[in-house]
Amino acid sequence: MEECTFCKIVKGEIPSFKIYEDEYTLAFPDINPVSEGHTLVIPKRHSENLFEIPAEDLIAVHQATQIVIHAIQNALNPIGVAVVQLNGKGVNQIIMHYHVHLVPRAADGPPLVVSDMGAKQANMDSLKQTADKIAAAIK
Amino acid sequence: MEECTFCKIVKGEIPSFKIYEDEYTLAFPDINPVSEGHTLVIPKRHSENLFEIPAEDLIAVHQATQIVIHAIQNALNPIGVAVVQLNGKGVNQIIMHYHVHLVPRAADGPPLVVSDMGAKQANMDSLKQTADKIAAAIK
Repeated sequence: MEECTFCKIVKGEIPSFKIYEDEYTLAFPDINPVSEGHTLVIPKRHSENLFEIPAEDLIAVHQATQIVIHAIQNALNPIGVAVVQLNGKGVNQIIMHYHVHLVPRAADGPPLVVSDMGAKQANMDSLKQTADKIAAAIK
Repeated sequence: MEECTFCKIVKGEIPSFKIYEDEYTLAFPDINPVSEGHTLVIPKRHSENLFEIPAEDLIAVHQATQIVIHAIQNALNPIGVAVVQLNGKGVNQIIMHYHVHLVPRAADGPPLVVSDMGAKQANMDSLKQTADKIAAAIK
């Protein structure tokens, strides 16, 4: 079976800009960001969605989102952060590995259209710059 | 200080249709549903958002979402379920008490526009009917 993209990122077979990591989780930028600082938090172990993720990983991921949201706030000072987790192709889940989107909205940014995930291509340099800024704000 | 709407629901001072309850959490229908079965899961203790919710409540709420999403799937058989949790008025958080939206999409339903939260008024009878159906599918 072809391994999933996020499992490859966990293994380092696909590069990513690391924002946060612990024993169970990894956070890195969405390469198709809805806004600057759009970050994904995933369990290292593969689960497809909320239906099947083990409690241990579910808890670890959501505790990691709390660490990362503080770092996003400190690094970028958004006026709000939407947390979105999609289950099923019918609601536009693209990568079938459980992931939580943290989508900050800048004061001068447009309203978030969360259904618009994956619409934009990112500039890799600015993606790395923002990821480094958030990673540096992790406490 | 005027107490928040969701704290009043927890205390039973404002009625709601109970879908799920445990020591730490409560689930009930969003009265402005984006789709049929749109359910909110909240911690009973007041926290405004992901920045400040204690770990105990954060964990309990997300474990409850896993119980409720299975019930939604069994009751309504959607083609996907979006999980959304908004932090800050800047991203349209309306009630300043941490809450997780579970928004199912029906096979014959339109794409979810998650930024559209709170747009529709619900019919109370159909809200109760759906809530009862989901509650009956809790395992």
